[in-house]
Amino acid sequence: MLVKVINPNTSAQMTEVIGRAARAVAGPGTEVRAVTAPMGPASVESHYDEALSVPGVLASLGDADGYVIACFGDPGLDAARELADGPVVGIAEAAMRAAAYLGRGFSVVTTVARARGRTWDLAAHYGVRRSCLGVHACEVPVLEIAAEPVLATCRKALESDEPDAIVLGCAGMAHLTASLSAELGVPVVDGVQAATLAVESLLRMGLRTGARGEFAAPPAKPYAGLLADFGS
Amino acid sequence: MLVKVINPNTSAQMTEVIGRAARAVAGPGTEVRAVTAPMGPASVESHYDEALSVPGVLASLGDADGYVIACFGDPGLDAARELADGPVVGIAEAAMRAAAYLGRGFSVVTTVARARGRTWDLAAHYGVRRSCLGVHACEVPVLEIAAEPVLATCRKALESDEPDAIVLGCAGMAHLTASLSAELGVPVVDGVQAATLAVESLLRMGLRTGARGEFAAPPAKPYAGLLADFGS
Amino acid sequence: MLVKVINPNTSAQMTEVIGRAARAVAGPGTEVRAVTAPMGPASVESHYDEALSVPGVLASLGDADGYVIACFGDPGLDAARELADGPVVGIAEAAMRAAAYLGRGFSVVTTVARARGRTWDLAAHYGVRRSCLGVHACEVPVLEIAAEPVLATCRKALESDEPDAIVLGCAGMAHLTASLSAELGVPVVDGVQAATLAVESLLRMGLRTGARGEFAAPPAKPYAGLLADFGS
Amino acid sequence: MLVKVINPNTSAQMTEVIGRAARAVAGPGTEVRAVTAPMGPASVESHYDEALSVPGVLASLGDADGYVIACFGDPGLDAARELADGPVVGIAEAAMRAAAYLGRGFSVVTTVARARGRTWDLAAHYGVRRSCLGVHACEVPVLEIAAEPVLATCRKALESDEPDAIVLGCAGMAHLTASLSAELGVPVVDGVQAATLAVESLLRMGLRTGARGEFAAPPAKPYAGLLADFGS
Amino acid sequence: MLVKVINPNTSAQMTEVIGRAARAVAGPGTEVRAVTAPMGPASVESHYDEALSVPGVLASLGDADGYVIACFGDPGLDAARELADGPVVGIAEAAMRAAAYLGRGFSVVTTVARARGRTWDLAAHYGVRRSCLGVHACEVPVLEIAAEPVLATCRKALESDEPDAIVLGCAGMAHLTASLSAELGVPVVDGVQAATLAVESLLRMGLRTGARGEFAAPPAKPYAGLLADFGS
Amino acid sequence: MLVKVINPNTSAQMTEVIGRAARAVAGPGTEVRAVTAPMGPASVESHYDEALSVPGVLASLGDADGYVIACFGDPGLDAARELADGPVVGIAEAAMRAAAYLGRGFSVVTTVARARGRTWDLAAHYGVRRSCLGVHACEVPVLEIAAEPVLATCRKALESDEPDAIVLGCAGMAHLTASLSAELGVPVVDGVQAATLAVESLLRMGLRTGARGEFAAPPAKPYAGLLADFGS
Repeated sequence: MLVKVINPNTSAQMTEVIGRAARAVAGPGTEVRAVTAPMGPASVESHYDEALSVPGVLASLGDADGYVIACFGDPGLDAARELADGPVVGIAEAAMRAAAYLGRGFSVVTTVARARGRTWDLAAHYGVRRSCLGVHACEVPVLEIAAEPVLATCRKALESDEPDAIVLGCAGMAHLTASLSAELGVPVVDGVQAATLAVESLLRMGLRTGARGEFAAPPAKPYAGLLADFGS
Repeated sequence: MLVKVINPNTSAQMTEVIGRAARAVAGPGTEVRAVTAPMGPASVESHYDEALSVPGVLASLGDADGYVIACFGDPGLDAARELADGPVVGIAEAAMRAAAYLGRGFSVVTTVARARGRTWDLAAHYGVRRSCLGVHACEVPVLEIAAEPVLATCRKALESDEPDAIVLGCAGMAHLTASLSAELGVPVVDGVQAATLAVESLLRMGLRTGARGEFAAPPAKPYAGLLADFGS
Repeated sequence: MLVKVINPNTSAQMTEVIGRAARAVAGPGTEVRAVTAPMGPASVESHYDEALSVPGVLASLGDADGYVIACFGDPGLDAARELADGPVVGIAEAAMRAAAYLGRGFSVVTTVARARGRTWDLAAHYGVRRSCLGVHACEVPVLEIAAEPVLATCRKALESDEPDAIVLGCAGMAHLTASLSAELGVPVVDGVQAATLAVESLLRMGLRTGARGEFAAPPAKPYAGLLADFGS
Repeated sequence: MLVKVINPNTSAQMTEVIGRAARAVAGPGTEVRAVTAPMGPASVESHYDEALSVPGVLASLGDADGYVIACFGDPGLDAARELADGPVVGIAEAAMRAAAYLGRGFSVVTTVARARGRTWDLAAHYGVRRSCLGVHACEVPVLEIAAEPVLATCRKALESDEPDAIVLGCAGMAHLTASLSAELGVPVVDGVQAATLAVESLLRMGLRTGARGEFAAPPAKPYAGLLADFGS
Repeated sequence: MLVKVINPNTSAQMTEVIGRAARAVAGPGTEVRAVTAPMGPASVESHYDEALSVPGVLASLGDADGYVIACFGDPGLDAARELADGPVVGIAEAAMRAAAYLGRGFSVVTTVARARGRTWDLAAHYGVRRSCLGVHACEVPVLEIAAEPVLATCRKALESDEPDAIVLGCAGMAHLTASLSAELGVPVVDGVQAATLAVESLLRMGLRTGARGEFAAPPAKPYAGLLADFGS
Repeated sequence: MLVKVINPNTSAQMTEVIGRAARAVAGPGTEVRAVTAPMGPASVESHYDEALSVPGVLASLGDADGYVIACFGDPGLDAARELADGPVVGIAEAAMRAAAYLGRGFSVVTTVARARGRTWDLAAHYGVRRSCLGVHACEVPVLEIAAEPVLATCRKALESDEPDAIVLGCAGMAHLTASLSAELGVPVVDGVQAATLAVESLLRMGLRTGARGEFAAPPAKPYAGLLADFGS
């Protein structure tokens, strides 16, 4: 089975990191293909960036059995579920749901402070707002993530929230998961891995998005201007 | 003061309807400019359409004192608040908040059944889920809205939900507001009008989006591919 | 159109402040009439005061197109909606809903600490409890409000809650709005202005409280004792 | 110990019914004194009536160890807690909390349809909204309550909601409790009895409202007009 | 009437404390019988202990008019309600509901930190999560409870949460209630007393668990192994 | 890796069904060992049965890398998480979380009507109450489950709730998943499979329950009576 892991930003180097993380946990029969969005922002650090990463996500769907949207804001998730021919999972929902199996609550460690609001919105939307004990920013831009400030922020989160687990709030932190967990002595959840395994699990059960109502294929219609090719 | 009312779809005829509704309630000193999105879907009838209406909304911002996003899914609202130089109001939030002044609860009458989910999401997000007593679809495509099926659906909603008011769940219904209200004998809220007045009110109070945290201007960065012009 | 702004306490000097604030934002065609409750407490600083301000509010209704209840506890709002012949808006609901357009969350700055509970109750009732990030008291009695302690409390709120906006939690602070906003550099919302504009907006849309169910005119019946004149 | 049971309306005949119900369950050492509000509406059937029953409730406090507010809207409860020198319990809160001990959910059977909204508000306020499975009106005015329509409405509620218990939504139904329970074969909770026992229980434990913060005695101040005597 | 107060742990000394607390508030006609669970843990300090205290609770039911489960985790409450021939009340639910009559919010003072999660779960389940302002552990094992650390923790809770009342989060603290309340000057609620009075009150009203649906007697069936005697 | 799937009831035939379902989806490197509880009820059809299935679940832990609790009430989950040396997942939580990836909402089809309450409790506890659109009982005892009544109840659920997916509310339905899905044309989620894959996924990511706080190993202590062997 083929799982396509979509990097919603256009930085190929982050796609590399994401693909490696996904492959590290995928099962023997699962092929992971990591792709870079063909259009949009170099990184997602605002509502603006996130909204404009969606066309690139949607353009990346197809030619696989299931899909991961590998940005912690889960951009375009509902639209992708309508469009895709297989299950679609966002890394924020997968990370939060995986963390829910590990105890009462988790803390999210994210990049920039202005991203915290979106995380709270998603936690509410996915029904885990009570399990989300805190969202902490290390104030490092997405493309400059490094081990040290993330570790320091994790420690701060452990002290203030007393969580059972840490959730990494950016796909670009995926390569730090194992070392953080070893250093901190608590479970650390990376959404890229959690989402890849969620898609693989759904495929093994033969499950995909229900397609009889809200998530049926979108009605065909003309699109205009720059986005004309998205129409049908 | 100048309020720009943005039609997120690319149908100029609906822009016409929207502009007329807004002008009908705007105060003496308020100029309303209704504009059609320069790119995107001909109408918004799915999560896919809505996600892809966002670039057109964002491209329409600027050159006004405040902005209305005139599609009942409030597409791109958070991103627009980061970007715009004045207050931005979505018609769903404005309609629901106006209806909250009129009694205990309201029913939403919308176009297609698959749009109901988004309405419930927004009601939850805006804190009025308990006031939203039902969401009813008349199963007419957005560009074919007509008085009769909307009226029939309103009657059905009044009977099943016993609301204090009806909220029209599509900008394309704006021209029906007065006749529906007269026919039904209950308050009928059109979001285009409610949002126009909300923007005008915020401007009169000298208020705009707080810009010190989550809604500060998005950080500058390169954008690639089709969307390269959205970068900076 | 005539909007009556009712001061629920019996202090004419505060009525003055309230009327001035309302007039400063009302549209060209809107006449504002500020009236003092004909009975009840000199100021509202407890549940007791608030409960006993309601008869004065109800006695003040009539002879206008719409009504503002200008005390941050929104005393008598449901009863006023049954009784009045036009829309009725409380300043707490209007301020909180206006603030909801300005970002993710707001802090309320109020007078006395014991009033904070009522504010939380109202935030929950109006569906904005998550947007209400904190309620802070400057511990100044209602009739002795001054710029300095309010400003200091706003600063404290900005630091602890990181809100996108400040909501003033007392009608008696209305004259401080502009200077506070200038000083603090964040949007400051005064409920008197927000409610006046909400009533004006509802009137422009031809909307008033739904009157077919819970908010129909109250059934006629005898009243006894001191309140005999409230019967019919 | 002396428990004063306050009838917020001015109908002495209903005070009779209420007093009898309270005495039927009060413990050996507990004296029940049922009093009629000295001012206000003959019955409470609207928000208007309820708001105007509050002064009569507050005027009835004093000269007892604890207090019951015997109207299902719990009028003036917070104010009474500030003012009273002993515990104060409303019959809606007591009935709903007693019913919570009897299973997963209850249905409320009330008098007039327009009263249902207030019941839902109270259920939310007391944290039992999920346990409240339905609110059903028998559409009989408060002063004309009779066994038959109440019984019929209870049967309807049992069928539609499948509750574990019925809560009677009006003090004037107190005399029907035993016969309804016998007839229906399910627990039927009368708030007058539940509240009387709640007050008695609090007194036995030596508990009364916390008086260090929000519920401290209200600050002294002048009152004007008709309500001048409520000032200090 | 006979109320059986069940100590879910197997420490007879704690049964003594519990029985004394219950008798101190029970009415003249109420006999209190305190019993020790015939099997299970010596104290309840983990989810494991609590789960394994349930068989002992269920084995202790019978031969009384009503039942109290005297451990703050309310172990086995739903099962006991199915099985028992009279009302069953847990001390956590009774304490929290009694505290709800005393103001806006309460703090819980418990034994070990790991028990806090269960308290939050119960607060949510009973609908009082908003009233529960904090849960504080004095970090003393259940069987070594002493006045001093409990008092110190209460003081800490009063300072950080500003509650209207304190709820004691362990049956083994029952003997400290009066002295704590005297020392602290705020109402202190002991669940053993609150639950005993709740059962007595339900019995006086002739109420017991609804038995037509979810809480009907469990269906008879074989049980195997160590628990064979629990079958029928 | 070895996943132990624990059947909380003592019916070996159901263990067979459960084991087969788990093995059908487990990855190449995963061994599934299905075990029958060594004590307790023959089936779980009441709160009483469920509470008494917990000792058998806890006695079955050990000698594996991860654990599934294969009864839709998730009996003993928190206790098992404290005790086990690897991740533990309940089939209700796993099924509900898997279904959350498939659209807006799901319906649960369960065995007996009295089990519906527990399902609602779990949905609330896991944060998916809004996604759970209905719980429907086919009124067949657990040990007599057959394809036809389950199918009929699924159809009823599809019609009344319009869900995106069906969740099977009993481990004993696991063998019906594929045929139901084929027949109904909507995704059907079996918790045994979902939980097995969730445990496998957690193990692949190197994750297990956080053990620094609430879910640390329970403190050692004596146990008495029938349960003496559970002590340490």
